[in-house]
Amino acid sequence: MSHYKTPLEDIRFNLEAFGYTENVHSMPDFADFDLDTAMGIIEEFAKFCEGELLPLNAKGDHDDLVFDPKDYSVTTADGFKEAWAAYAAAGWSGVTGPVEYGGFGAPHAVGVMTGESLIATNKSFSMCDGLSKGLINALAAGGVSEELKSTYLPKLISGEWTGTMCLTEAQCGTDLGLMTTKAIPNDDGSFRLTGSKIWISFGEHDYAENIIHLVLARLPDAPSGIKGISAFIVPKFLDDGSRNPVFCGGLEHKMGINASPTCVINMEEAQGWLVGAPHKGMRTMFVMMNTARLHTGLEGVALGEHAYQAALSFAKDRRQSRALDKSKREAGVAADNILVHPDVRRMLLNVKSTTEPLRGLGCWIATQIDVAHHHPDAATREKASGLVALLTPVIKSYGSERGFLNTSEAMQVMGGAGFTQDWPVEQLMRDLRIAMLYEGTNHIQALDLVGRKLPMNGGALIMGFAAEVKEGIKAAAADPAIAPFAGILAGYSKQLSTVTQGLMMSAMQDREVVGAVASSYLNFFALVTLGHVWLRQLAHAKTYGEESATWRGKLQTARFFFESVLPEADVFAARVAAGKGSVTDIDISLL
Amino acid sequence: MSHYKTPLEDIRFNLEAFGYTENVHSMPDFADFDLDTAMGIIEEFAKFCEGELLPLNAKGDHDDLVFDPKDYSVTTADGFKEAWAAYAAAGWSGVTGPVEYGGFGAPHAVGVMTGESLIATNKSFSMCDGLSKGLINALAAGGVSEELKSTYLPKLISGEWTGTMCLTEAQCGTDLGLMTTKAIPNDDGSFRLTGSKIWISFGEHDYAENIIHLVLARLPDAPSGIKGISAFIVPKFLDDGSRNPVFCGGLEHKMGINASPTCVINMEEAQGWLVGAPHKGMRTMFVMMNTARLHTGLEGVALGEHAYQAALSFAKDRRQSRALDKSKREAGVAADNILVHPDVRRMLLNVKSTTEPLRGLGCWIATQIDVAHHHPDAATREKASGLVALLTPVIKSYGSERGFLNTSEAMQVMGGAGFTQDWPVEQLMRDLRIAMLYEGTNHIQALDLVGRKLPMNGGALIMGFAAEVKEGIKAAAADPAIAPFAGILAGYSKQLSTVTQGLMMSAMQDREVVGAVASSYLNFFALVTLGHVWLRQLAHAKTYGEESATWRGKLQTARFFFESVLPEADVFAARVAAGKGSVTDIDISLL
Repeated sequence: MSHYKTPLEDIRFNLEAFGYTENVHSMPDFADFDLDTAMGIIEEFAKFCEGELLPLNAKGDHDDLVFDPKDYSVTTADGFKEAWAAYAAAGWSGVTGPVEYGGFGAPHAVGVMTGESLIATNKSFSMCDGLSKGLINALAAGGVSEELKSTYLPKLISGEWTGTMCLTEAQCGTDLGLMTTKAIPNDDGSFRLTGSKIWISFGEHDYAENIIHLVLARLPDAPSGIKGISAFIVPKFLDDGSRNPVFCGGLEHKMGINASPTCVINMEEAQGWLVGAPHKGMRTMFVMMNTARLHTGLEGVALGEHAYQAALSFAKDRRQSRALDKSKREAGVAADNILVHPDVRRMLLNVKSTTEPLRGLGCWIATQIDVAHHHPDAATREKASGLVALLTPVIKSYGSERGFLNTSEAMQVMGGAGFTQDWPVEQLMRDLRIAMLYEGTNHIQALDLVGRKLPMNGGALIMGFAAEVKEGIKAAAADPAIAPFAGILAGYSKQLSTVTQGLMMSAMQDREVVGAVASSYLNFFALVTLGHVWLRQLAHAKTYGEESATWRGKLQTARFFFESVLPEADVFAARVAAGKGSVTDIDISLL
Repeated sequence: MSHYKTPLEDIRFNLEAFGYTENVHSMPDFADFDLDTAMGIIEEFAKFCEGELLPLNAKGDHDDLVFDPKDYSVTTADGFKEAWAAYAAAGWSGVTGPVEYGGFGAPHAVGVMTGESLIATNKSFSMCDGLSKGLINALAAGGVSEELKSTYLPKLISGEWTGTMCLTEAQCGTDLGLMTTKAIPNDDGSFRLTGSKIWISFGEHDYAENIIHLVLARLPDAPSGIKGISAFIVPKFLDDGSRNPVFCGGLEHKMGINASPTCVINMEEAQGWLVGAPHKGMRTMFVMMNTARLHTGLEGVALGEHAYQAALSFAKDRRQSRALDKSKREAGVAADNILVHPDVRRMLLNVKSTTEPLRGLGCWIATQIDVAHHHPDAATREKASGLVALLTPVIKSYGSERGFLNTSEAMQVMGGAGFTQDWPVEQLMRDLRIAMLYEGTNHIQALDLVGRKLPMNGGALIMGFAAEVKEGIKAAAADPAIAPFAGILAGYSKQLSTVTQGLMMSAMQDREVVGAVASSYLNFFALVTLGHVWLRQLAHAKTYGEESATWRGKLQTARFFFESVLPEADVFAARVAAGKGSVTDIDISLL
C-alpha cells in the first residue's frame, strides 16, 4: 500500500521562506525561473516520480540484481531501464545541467526540491541520477578542459550516459590517503589506471549505453597521503566504441537500496583522462561530494516524509481502544480512531516537527548554493558559500540520523503492520540506514564541522551564523504567538556560543577532545539550527494569515518541536561538557 | 562472518550480583541447582546454540518459508527441523519445565540466562521455544485441570509438540476487547471455536508433530469487552490423530525474523478445551505474556551483545587514519587501529554500557520470579512478585528500544561494511525491530507501568523500589571509587520521586496526561533503574579485587554510562513536565 504524494505545498512554502524569489530576481542566469515556473517543473517532475518510479520501488527491493561474471554485466530489475529512458527523454537528467551543453539550466534550488520526490519514490533509482548530476557539476566546475566537457557533458545531461564516483578501496574508506590505485601517463596525454575500488554505486548497470567513472588515483610522482591524489575520467566504452578494461567484479548484498548495484570495480590499465590539475583530485571530488552530502541529508527528509504519510494514512483508518478523555469518545462505536490517542499524535508530531525544518534547511542550503555560484556580487557569493560549507555537514549527518529514527517512529505508529512488507515503511527504514554511513560517515561530518568549518576564516562562518540566529530570535520575539519559542531558542543559542568557544579552546590544546565530542556537538548545533529554521518558517507562515491552515499547522507542529524535541540538545551539551575522559582513559583490552 | 560467543562470565557475574546463590539456598525446590550447576547448564546450552543454531541464522533469514495452500503446511528452511529435534533431544525444551511432567525443573533464572544465547544465535528459532515455554508456564500455573496438564505438558516439555499464543485479530491488536472469535460448548465439555487470528508466530511449521494453540475467544454468554474473554487449548491434531480444523491461511512477509513463520490462523469449528475459569482468559494469557515480555526485553540484550561483538571484532582488525594524539600513533604504519579513535570507543561504550545493566536487570527480574513462586516466606514472595510486576514493562520496552538503537550504533562502528550481509549486524537490526512492537507495543508497556503498576497496592511497588534505589545509593556513596556515580544517580532518583508524584496527581484529574507522557516517563524510569543496576554491579565487581579485569572493566564502562548515557533522562523528564498540551491542543486535520 503506497500513500506517497510529493508535499508540493510545503516545498513552495520553503522556496518562498528561504528567499527563492529574491534570489532569482538578483541573478540574471535564472531570470527565466520565477517561482511559478520552478513549481511547474517540480510538479511535473513529481508526477513522473509518483507515476513511474513509485510503482517500481518495492519490486526493485525484492528482485535480485543479476551479475554475470562471464561478461561482467549487471542486469537491473524489470522496468528500471525503461524508467531511466523515460526519465532521460523527459529531460530530467539535465534539468539543472548547463544550457551550453544541452541542459535546462534550472537553479540548484529547483534541482534539490525535485530531488525530494525522486528519492522518496525510489531511492535506489535516485542514486543513479544523483551520481550523474554530481559528475555533471564536477565537470562543469572551473579548471576542467573544454575537451572533457564537450565529450562528456552533453551525453550525461541527456541521460544517454551515467556517472559514478570511485573513491573507496578495501583498505581505505574514511582515510583516502591510504589509496593505492595507480595512474601511469600514456604518450597521448591520457593515463592507464590500475586498481580496485569497492562500494561503487551504479558502477555497472543496464540503464545507459556508457558509464563514466570519476576515479581517484595516484600519479607516479604523487606525494604520499591525500595530497597525492588526482581525479580521472574513465569511461566504460572509449570513443572508438572499444571496451575499456574497467570491469565490475561483483555486487554487495545489502540491508537496503537493493535496486542500486553496489559494485566492486576493477581496472587493469584502463584508459583515463586527468580532470583538473595533478594531485588536486580531492578538489574535484569535493564538488561532487558536497552535492552528494546535501542529497544524503535530503534522503532523511524524503524517506521520513514518505514514512510519515504511510503512518498517517494507517492511523486514519485504524480504530483501537477508547479515548482516554471520555468526552472525546465517538458514540455508537466500540473503539475510537487511534488519532485520538495522545501517544499516536506524539509519534506523528515527532516525525513531522523534524522533517519540516530539515526540508527548510535543505531548501535554504540549496538557494545559497545558487547564490554562491551565480550572484553578481562577490561578497554575497562568499557569504553564501560560507553558509553552505557550514551547514552541509549538519544536514548530511543530522538529516540522515533523524530521518532514520523517523522511519522507525513511523513504524511504531503502525504496530505490527509497519513491520510487514504490506507497507512501505520497513523498506524505507532499510533504504535509509546507509545514509548515516556513506558520503563520509556521520562522524566524519562532525569532524568536518568542528575541525574545518568552525575555525574557517578565523571563525567567521560560525560567527556569521550565530548572528543570523540571534536576528531571527529578535524578530520572532516581537510576535507574541512565537515569542515563547524565540525565548527557548535564545537559551540554546547562547549555550551554543559558550559550548563552541569552550570546544575551540580545548581543541587547540588537545585534538582528542574534538574526536570525543564532535558527534555530540554536531547534534547540538543541528537542533539549534532546526530551531532557527522553525522561526523563519513561522515568520513566513504568518504571512498566509492567522486563519490559514499553513499558519495553524506550522504553529502546532513548531510547538511540539520547541517543547519536546529541542530539549534533546541538553543531552548533547552535557556530552560535550563531559569531555574526552570517559573514552580516552580506558583500557581497550577490557572492551 | 560470525563472531558471537555467549558472555558466560558476565552471566555468572550477574547471577552472583543478583543473589542467585542466596535464593537457591532459601528455596528447597532448587536445592540441586547451586551456581556451579546453573553455570554448567548455561555453558552446555551455549555450546549447543553456538554450534548448531548460529550457523543456521543467516540461512533462515535468506531462505523463504514455504506455505502450501493445498494442505496448509509451512516448510521451514533446511536444517531448522533437525535443529529443533536435537534441541528437544538434549532436553532444552524442558529445562525449566516442572519435574512431575518430565521437565528438568531448573530455576527460571537459569532459563532466562540460557535464553540470551538462544536468542542471540537464532532469534527466529528462539521464538518457537519461547512460545512453548510460555505455554508450559501457563498450563503449569494454578487453576488448570490435571487432565489438561497431563495431556499437554509432557509433550510440550519433551519438545515433541510446540505451543503458540493466539490473541490478535485483524480488528484487534492492542485492544483485545474487540475480539470476535467465538467458542460454543459441545456436549462433552469441550468447545468448538470459530474465528481468524493474525500474526501467530509458529502457528504452523514442520518442527514438531503437533502444535498446541492457546486461543482467546468468547463464550456465548460472555460479557462484552476484555472481561468476556476465555482461554482455550486448541491442538492441531486431536487425541485420535484426526486433524482439528485450525489451519494456517498464509504467511506474512516481514522486515526480519524471516525464519519465524508469522501465520494467519483460521478456525472453523475447531475443537478446544477451556483453560481456567470462563471469562478469565486474560489471566492465563498474562502468565504467558509476562514471560514473553521479559523474553522480549532480553532480545535487546542478546542481539545488542551480538552486534557489539561483531563491531568490536571488526574494529580490532581495521586500520584507518592516524591517532589524533600524536603520542598514540603506532610507528611504521600508515594508519592506526580504529580503536584509538575516540568516537569509535564512544560508540562501543554506548552499546556496552547499556547492554550490561540491561542484562543485570533481566537477571534480577528472573531471580525474583523464582522467589515469587518458590520462596517459603509469603511476604518475601509478595515483595518479589511486586518487583517483577513493576520492572517487566520497563525491561520489555526499554530493552527492546535500546537494543535496537544499539544494533544501529554497532553498525555505525563498522561503516559501510555493517550495511552488508557479510556481517550479521544488519540482520540483527531487522530481527530486533519487531521487539518494540510485539507482546504489547512499547507504549502499552508504558501505560501498564503508569496506569496499573504505579498505583498498585496504593503505590507500594514504586515506593519499595525507590527505597531500594536509595539504599543502593547510600551504600555506593561510602566507596570513593563509585561515590561520584552514586551522587549523579541520587539527583535523578530524587527527580524520579518528584516526577512520579506529579504524574500521579495529574493522572487522577486527567487520563490524557498519562497517554501523553507515559512513554517518556517509562524511559526516565528505565534510565534510573539502569543506574541502580550499575551501582549493584559495581559493588559486586569490587569483590573481585581492585586489580581484577572485572572491576576495572565495569568501572570504565559505568563511568561512560553515568557521564554520557544517564543524562538522557533530562530529556524524558522535560517531556513529562511539558505535559499533554502539545499533543492534545491540536487540530488533527492539519497533521
